[in-house]
Order: sequence, then C-alpha cells, then structure tokens
Amino acid sequence: MASGGELINNKQVIFKNFVEGFPKESDMEVKTSSISLKVEEGSNAVVVKNLYLSCDPYMRNRMTQSDQETNDPEFIPFTPGSPLEGFGVAKVVDSGHPNYKKGDLIWGMVKWEEYSLIENPQLFKIHHADVPLSHYTGILGMPGITAWAGFYEVCSPKKGEKVYISAASGAVGQLVGQFAKLMGCYVVGSAGSKEKVDLLKNKFGFDDAFNYKEEHDLDAALKRCFPEGIDIYFENVGGKMLDAVLLNMRLRGRIAACGMISQYNLHQPEGVYNLMNIVGKRIRMEGLMAFDYFPQYAKFLDVVLPFVREKKVVYVEDIAEGIESAPAALVGLFSGRNVGKQVVAVAKE
Amino acid sequence: MASGGELINNKQVIFKNFVEGFPKESDMEVKTSSISLKVEEGSNAVVVKNLYLSCDPYMRNRMTQSDQETNDPEFIPFTPGSPLEGFGVAKVVDSGHPNYKKGDLIWGMVKWEEYSLIENPQLFKIHHADVPLSHYTGILGMPGITAWAGFYEVCSPKKGEKVYISAASGAVGQLVGQFAKLMGCYVVGSAGSKEKVDLLKNKFGFDDAFNYKEEHDLDAALKRCFPEGIDIYFENVGGKMLDAVLLNMRLRGRIAACGMISQYNLHQPEGVYNLMNIVGKRIRMEGLMAFDYFPQYAKFLDVVLPFVREKKVVYVEDIAEGIESAPAALVGLFSGRNVGKQVVAVAKE
Repeated sequence: MASGGELINNKQVIFKNFVEGFPKESDMEVKTSSISLKVEEGSNAVVVKNLYLSCDPYMRNRMTQSDQETNDPEFIPFTPGSPLEGFGVAKVVDSGHPNYKKGDLIWGMVKWEEYSLIENPQLFKIHHADVPLSHYTGILGMPGITAWAGFYEVCSPKKGEKVYISAASGAVGQLVGQFAKLMGCYVVGSAGSKEKVDLLKNKFGFDDAFNYKEEHDLDAALKRCFPEGIDIYFENVGGKMLDAVLLNMRLRGRIAACGMISQYNLHQPEGVYNLMNIVGKRIRMEGLMAFDYFPQYAKFLDVVLPFVREKKVVYVEDIAEGIESAPAALVGLFSGRNVGKQVVAVAKE
Repeated sequence: MASGGELINNKQVIFKNFVEGFPKESDMEVKTSSISLKVEEGSNAVVVKNLYLSCDPYMRNRMTQSDQETNDPEFIPFTPGSPLEGFGVAKVVDSGHPNYKKGDLIWGMVKWEEYSLIENPQLFKIHHADVPLSHYTGILGMPGITAWAGFYEVCSPKKGEKVYISAASGAVGQLVGQFAKLMGCYVVGSAGSKEKVDLLKNKFGFDDAFNYKEEHDLDAALKRCFPEGIDIYFENVGGKMLDAVLLNMRLRGRIAACGMISQYNLHQPEGVYNLMNIVGKRIRMEGLMAFDYFPQYAKFLDVVLPFVREKKVVYVEDIAEGIESAPAALVGLFSGRNVGKQVVAVAKE
C-alpha cells in the first residue's frame, strides 16, 4: 500500500530463503529499505515504530517451506525476500484504524524492521507501562499466556504435585516453574548449561534442576529427581526427553505439549518408543498454542500483572541490542545460547 | 484354602512360564486338578462354575515378568505353574459371602479352569439374563465399558465428526464404531482381513473400512478415507498406525488410547515420529483403562442394555468351544485369527 508521506530509511531483517536443518545467520540479511510513516487516506492500517522484537522457537516452523494450507499464524511460512515476522512491542506512529491512535503502545505481530506498516491490525494495547515494556514479548505476552494456559488450564495442577519442566530457563519454562511453586508443587527443571541450572535453583526457586547435557541417562536423572514419579510434565523439547519422561510419569499424569524444540531442526524427528505408558498410566497429553488463549488476555493479565508488580515472579530476559543483532539472536535460540527470554531491542521510545 | 467338601476334577489352563515375543499355545497347558465345590465354614469366598472365559489383549501384559509393583489387575503378572486369570461369566456354586448366593450369575475376574474358588470376591451380579450370557465378557462387560467410556467420556464426540477406529472388528472397536454411528458421526475402521472389513461395512454399518495389511502406505489410506482429516481416533494398535494417524488428525482432535496391540509382542516397540502434530494441532491424547469406570457400571448398563435389546447395536463373538481350546483362542488374538470378540465357552449352565 503506497502512502502519501515522506519516505524514511527502514532497516529490515530479510528472510533469504527456506531453511533445512539448523538456521544460520546467513539465512537472513539486514537491509535498508524505505517506508512512509503516514498511512494512506481511508486505509485502516497502522504504522508502528518497533521497540522490541521477540525471538521465539515457533519461528523455526515458518522458515520451512510448506504446501499445507493453514490459518495458524505460527505455521504460515515466511516469504523469501521479505522481512521476518514475529511478536514485538511497538509504538503507533500513525493510524487509520479506529482502535489505535498515535502514541499508543501495542504488542502483537510485527515485521522484523524498524518501522512496520500493519494492515488489518490485531494488536494488543499496552495499558500498563509501569513494568518493563520488553515484558510484553515475554511474561506479559505470548510466552506468558502459553505458560499460564498450559499450566493452569491444560495441566489441572494440584498443590503438592510433582512438576517437571524441560527447557526450564526459557521464555515459558521459567514462568511455569514459578507458577507451580506458587501453587505449592515440587518443581524440577532441566536446561543446557551450569549457568541456567543455577538460575533455576537460585533465582526462580525450583526445588531441583539438572543440566541435561551432562546426563548420559535421562531416565536415571529423572528417577533421581522424582523417586515417586512425575505428575505434570511441561513439554518444550520432545524426542529423547519425552521418551524418558514417559517412563517416569505417575498414574493419571498430565503432559502439556507446548513445543518440541529439540526436533525442529532435524531432517527426521527422533522416534518415541514409550507411548504404551499413556495407556497403562492413563496419561493425558495435550497440545497447546498461545493463540487459542488470546481472547482470555485480560483474565491472564489480572493474574500475572500483580505477580510482576509484587515480585512474586521474576523474569529473566536476554536482550540483544540493535536490529543488526536480530539474526544471531534468533539462531542462538536453537543452540541454547540465550539465557532467559531472548529479545532484540530495536529502539528506545 | 482347604475346604470340607468332596473333591471333583477341575480342568485348568496352566501358565507355564513368562513369555517373550508372541505367546504360543505351548506357553500354556491344560491339566486336570481337583477342587471342592464347598467353601470353608466362616470363609467369605465363593466357588463358581465358569461358563465363559474372555480372551483379551491386555492379558499379554500379564505374561511378561515384571518387578514393577502394581495394584492394577491388568498388570499383575500371572504366576507360572498356576492357572491364567481373566474375565469370565460364571454361576455361583457355593458362597460364604453375604453378597452372593448359590445360583447367582456373575461376571468378573475368574481363573482359567472349570471351577474357581474366589477369595474376597469382587464380582458383578448379572441381573439381566434375557441377553446371551457370553455378552458379559464383551458388550456388557469390560470391553463394553472400555468402548463406552473411551468414546463418550474421553473422546467428547459431536455429531458429524470424523471417527477412525483401528482393530475395528475387535471386542471394543466394533462397539465404538456403532456408538459413533448412533451419534451421527462419519466412521471408518481398519482390520486385518477381507472378512473383517466386510463385517465392518455390512454388519456394523461403518461408512468405510480398509484392510491395513493390503495398504503399503497407511498415510495414503487414511487420506483416501478422510480427505478432511480425523476428529477422533480410537487407538487400539499403536506403532506405525498411530504415526500415520497423527499426520491426518484435525485441529483439536482427540485420541483415546485404549491399547497398542501391535506393540505387545515386540522386544522393542516401534518409534513414533510425528508427535509434533500434537502441539501444532492441539491434539488431546488420553489413556484409559476399563477398571477406572467399573464404579459407573450401572450407568453404563442403562445406556447399552437397551441398545442390545432393541438391536440398535449388534455384537459379533468368536466362540471357541471347550476349555481345551482356550490356549489357541488366546494366542489367536495376537495374529488376528478371531473375527469379533474372542470367547471360550467352558460349560452350559
């Protein structure tokens, strides 16, 4: 959509082509394009200035070519030659849409660039700016809703239950663990470095934690941490970890399947062999996606915003500075380089 | 427990030793022992004359040595040198228990023999003998409760949904399919012979059916039968079939995991590779065991007994005559030799 205003420079992170295996920085490139900061007369679009971009594991799905039709924003492939898309926090610069006005802070789906023209905007307005705005890419945004819905809605948790979380220091895992502690559960997490394990134990208050890379036998590690078994597993990684967990689930255990990051970059996913446990132990395993819970955002915020303000829940972010750092930040997710929620800071207000 | 009465001959099917791989007839032997038909004074046991014995896939679990402690009757290993156990229909011959009296018809866990002494009996009394008594090993017994609970409770079915059932001509599958048709679902089943496929289509009223042994590509077979995908999968077989189903599930599909008969005799179960679909499609997969629903037996009977009497649901049984035929009947389950629910008729009333 062309528009009448003056054009200014707009740095963008361009998706070069579809990816197989692990994504590399060279699958993206930072280019300067131009954009008008005015929306066209009569349009219902908005133009926003992007402040924070969110790096999330689901974005790997969108880097794969697919001929499957989908309405799920998480699965619509990126367009080679165009900027990546993802969640972000932004400020409205101009608006033709009755719900948004200049100066509004929003979060939602934006493009990976300094300024985005968004047609048919479906963006959440940020009404509480007394907390760090970057939190709207994390604890108060999509990962927060995922953790909240996955734990409270899907897992049906009860006080005293034994909860295991993989990728536990990530954007979602750190929250699930803290929600579970607030409920009075016994909570163990795994992560991929000593630094992350220390965070789990010392900052997030997990009862125990282990570095999965240092365990040659995941089944034994889980038996050590859960001698009586696991009631709730918050699944972020899939593959071998899921297989070991199935052996250690208790009767009527619940598995919230939020993601399987260990599998996203494999040409052929790993086989899972222990599914018979689902029958014998009457396990319920259920997939979830944050999008399904967006209509409940206000309800979610009522619960979680006080947690943030009262410091009942802490949130660790790994903030990369500048849009030029975005490709490396995204790639780093898949090697576990980030410590905490990975964000890219594009601009100050 | 010794008892005072006269001893009579009692043919028994003895479990010889723990089994690896497929069970064989030679893993069991028919022997003649002796039993008193009177319970000991002061005991709360009952003695029953067994009329029908039920051959069920879960019995394979009990043929495997296990050092895991379990209270689940489905998982307590058989005792080498003693008779097998399983569900049966029987007539009370003598009783020291206040709930049972001589002449009562019951169904529940009995031993594989002509007469059983049952201590601490937990048996269902048969109050409706206007239907074939053998049905209490099937449509009105454990498989019936499995089908009823699995379909109505676990699958949350809705009119018009697309339902797929594996091992569909078996004790449970034939019922799930007919329940689904009564609800107005589109129903497809798979089975392992032309005769079974004909049953599905012509006797049970399935909309479509296929012989999985003649499909070299299960994914393609499912796409042919379900061009718009599967809402509900009633899982009886596991392994490769589950993997193909996962590719074809629809958004928010449900999988009731009732059994995985294709896996029971393998040294190492097959890997399942397509579990990522659980996340993306928000699939709920849930294990179930009939035992959990036994307290709801009266409610179940209120629904299903009228179906039987009014012939809204038909039930095909494969009845082997005589206790000597029991080992072959049980072994035949795992090669799919039976057509319909496998029963052994031990005695007429």
